[in-house]
Amino acid sequence: MEDISKKFEKLFNPKTIAFIGASNNPMKWGFRLLHHLIMGGYQGKIYPVNPREKEILGYPAFTRVKDLPGEIDLAIFTVDASTVVELIKECIDKKIQAGVVIAAGFSELGSQQAELEEEMTRIAREGGMILVGPNGQGIVNTAPTKLYCWMPAVFPPPGAIGIVSQSGNLGTLVVNQGLKYGLGISKFISSGNEADLRMENYFDYFLNDPLTKVILAYIEGVDDGRRFLEVSKRVTKSKPIVVLKAGRSNFGAQAARSHTGALSGSDGIFAAACRQAGVLRVNTIEELFMVGASFLGQPLPRGRRVGILTGGGGWGVIAADCCAANGLEVARLSERTLKQLKEILPSWWVPGNPVDLVAGIQFDVHRKIVEILISSGDIDGLLMVGIGWVNTMKDAYKDSPMAEEYGLLEGIKVMLEVNYKESEQLVDMIHHYQRPILPIADFAKEVREKNYTSLIKLLDENILIYPTVNLATFAFAKMLSRQEYLGG
Amino acid sequence: MEDISKKFEKLFNPKTIAFIGASNNPMKWGFRLLHHLIMGGYQGKIYPVNPREKEILGYPAFTRVKDLPGEIDLAIFTVDASTVVELIKECIDKKIQAGVVIAAGFSELGSQQAELEEEMTRIAREGGMILVGPNGQGIVNTAPTKLYCWMPAVFPPPGAIGIVSQSGNLGTLVVNQGLKYGLGISKFISSGNEADLRMENYFDYFLNDPLTKVILAYIEGVDDGRRFLEVSKRVTKSKPIVVLKAGRSNFGAQAARSHTGALSGSDGIFAAACRQAGVLRVNTIEELFMVGASFLGQPLPRGRRVGILTGGGGWGVIAADCCAANGLEVARLSERTLKQLKEILPSWWVPGNPVDLVAGIQFDVHRKIVEILISSGDIDGLLMVGIGWVNTMKDAYKDSPMAEEYGLLEGIKVMLEVNYKESEQLVDMIHHYQRPILPIADFAKEVREKNYTSLIKLLDENILIYPTVNLATFAFAKMLSRQEYLGG
Repeated sequence: MEDISKKFEKLFNPKTIAFIGASNNPMKWGFRLLHHLIMGGYQGKIYPVNPREKEILGYPAFTRVKDLPGEIDLAIFTVDASTVVELIKECIDKKIQAGVVIAAGFSELGSQQAELEEEMTRIAREGGMILVGPNGQGIVNTAPTKLYCWMPAVFPPPGAIGIVSQSGNLGTLVVNQGLKYGLGISKFISSGNEADLRMENYFDYFLNDPLTKVILAYIEGVDDGRRFLEVSKRVTKSKPIVVLKAGRSNFGAQAARSHTGALSGSDGIFAAACRQAGVLRVNTIEELFMVGASFLGQPLPRGRRVGILTGGGGWGVIAADCCAANGLEVARLSERTLKQLKEILPSWWVPGNPVDLVAGIQFDVHRKIVEILISSGDIDGLLMVGIGWVNTMKDAYKDSPMAEEYGLLEGIKVMLEVNYKESEQLVDMIHHYQRPILPIADFAKEVREKNYTSLIKLLDENILIYPTVNLATFAFAKMLSRQEYLGG
Repeated sequence: MEDISKKFEKLFNPKTIAFIGASNNPMKWGFRLLHHLIMGGYQGKIYPVNPREKEILGYPAFTRVKDLPGEIDLAIFTVDASTVVELIKECIDKKIQAGVVIAAGFSELGSQQAELEEEMTRIAREGGMILVGPNGQGIVNTAPTKLYCWMPAVFPPPGAIGIVSQSGNLGTLVVNQGLKYGLGISKFISSGNEADLRMENYFDYFLNDPLTKVILAYIEGVDDGRRFLEVSKRVTKSKPIVVLKAGRSNFGAQAARSHTGALSGSDGIFAAACRQAGVLRVNTIEELFMVGASFLGQPLPRGRRVGILTGGGGWGVIAADCCAANGLEVARLSERTLKQLKEILPSWWVPGNPVDLVAGIQFDVHRKIVEILISSGDIDGLLMVGIGWVNTMKDAYKDSPMAEEYGLLEGIKVMLEVNYKESEQLVDMIHHYQRPILPIADFAKEVREKNYTSLIKLLDENILIYPTVNLATFAFAKMLSRQEYLGG
């Protein structure tokens, strides 16, 4: 156990890398991954290995692994499947303990290649080398080592989300969600065919990785169900695991077989195992990210009574429907709470939940309403629909001479300041009252890119902004599931 | 019928507007809507009416409606509910035939205000004036008249999607989808409480509007179910209607009552009516837009056999699951088709559907594969997952000196040209083979903003790019529903 964690340390925080199959041809992965490693700001030593080149991307190239100077922590293989086994032997001779096999052409292609994969795995294990892949897209570590060694030219910032994916492409989509919604990741692994290291090994690693607070996984198949269950059960006691399982249908299972060679097995059995192990299941990439990120900055709800605060009635209706669809309750507010709200809301406010922040409301009233609701004891959590819209106004009017002349821009400036304070207060209230408050904004995906400062304040506290009430209520329900699992 | 269509013409293409309640106070809707009308480029005459001002946003202000010169086509009311009735009387004296009542404070607040609303409606009808609202956010027409007269500072370009929404906020979200995904709208109506003009009137109008090809509606309640059914049935013979019905659950129905005063009624009855009338129902704002936009540039599928073309196996597995979830079939390819594909795909390609465009494929092979599939007779439509990714590479590498030095940027340029041609060929194939080909790209929402030219080519042909396989398969299933409805 300690042994493997040392090897994982070399995998994710290598001081020296042997890049076997590095290339000056920009159409080859041997170029692209090395290029990304450099672009990503890797600070350790890189040794390209390629007998046909003298220099690769500015680094002196080596003919053979045994020629490399000093101790090598990690080997990356971007070579043909047929040559990997011999090269791994060389790496073992060189006492390299961790490798990432990018190459495809193994068990996903049939029985002959499956034998090659088995041989590779046997040799690596005998030689004390852990292997990621094959048929994967690489790995990412964001901190402390900047290790962006994967196929896409995507460079997520540091964060607390650990991701492991049996599909590189779909894993990239999950990372992209984080980039877009403004939250970073800790580590990403494209686990490919999982010849040596398997899903459970990564789960175990994440359990002990202090930088990872939640684990997201895309799974097509699990080889050893019993072990998956046992490890997951142990991990979910401390950290949430959220899983998107593909190949659920017959059509999907068939497709999975020719993709990673995975045997998806019965979905019913997998579902039962997840329930037993406290693993949360989702249906889409977006849900995978949203549910996972919900555990970063929010406390768990202690019940299903939801308060809904909206900046427009239609949103309230949709949110109420979504609560019903996700097994949540639209909380019934007590007379006391309604009385408190009536005192600060305009006369034409229609009492009830959803609380519709009708036109004409003063801006500083907003915080008071949130506090009345969240401290009331009537609700277990709050959805805030349409938060921070004043940020979009700033952009919309920035080129209008009339907005300047008649004082609209000045008004927006004041509102933005109020909005920023509200965000600060929101964070305080989440922490103080230990109840989740889920902010929802249509433009959630643009907050970082367009520099919407009051909302960035939330992201900096690891509070995700949801793009739709559907996703927010879905996430709320999953947070509740986890609470119930841990409590039960 | 002819009478009301003339009035609708004045509503959407007014040459002169009386803006009653116009204001120089940037915090009032009387400022904001007028401001948006001007920002949007309205070319007709605007007459602000406000007894307390001499000039509003540069236009001379009038004290009373009767003082306005010449014929007035449209009246906008951004005044208190209490004053609307008298002002409508003045408009009728002035022979104004169309009005938009922005003001809230009507039937949504209870019985007393409901009486006010009834009186307003009675007077307008007796005076031959059609009214949009009250309690709405305004209207938009994109062409030929640039009429952006609504609350949000959002200016969608011309397009073929007509939208009517009982919630202004949610209607705005639908319009925003169009803006983000790069497709315009024809008209938008925030129908509010629908005191005079109702959902069915707008449906009827859209039926006869040559600029509108598909109708999207957000509905909380329908007053006259029989009439809704009758009109919808007539409209869907020519143009698709897609509906997001909120207030489906008990929680939602309750929320709807206090929002627009709508009685949502039984969801089962509404569902049955929709089925009978060929109205397509969806569950989210995103689905509403995606399904609607699918009817613009794609022919209807004639069956449920789907071909899946992916740039990575995981996508294929997810797509296959999505097909199953939406009642579609992952098509079984004939021996003949597989043989044709094998001839041009690399030796390590695993034959079957999904067709995984494995690494190593030549770029010009892409078109041939699409053509083999779409012309095969084996499939009724094709999902193309991961289209146009080379566009994102251009952005990713643009600042890398190595990408320049080693020829990667040059390579991307060539690939982009190939990609542009592929888009052209895709459009041709959709038209030639009359089968839908649905393109899917994670970055669909950024195509216009980031100027991804090969994909803009698709949007310019009204071919929507879907952000996920889930949404694409959902849309495919709804297109098939329409085909079955029309065929049956």
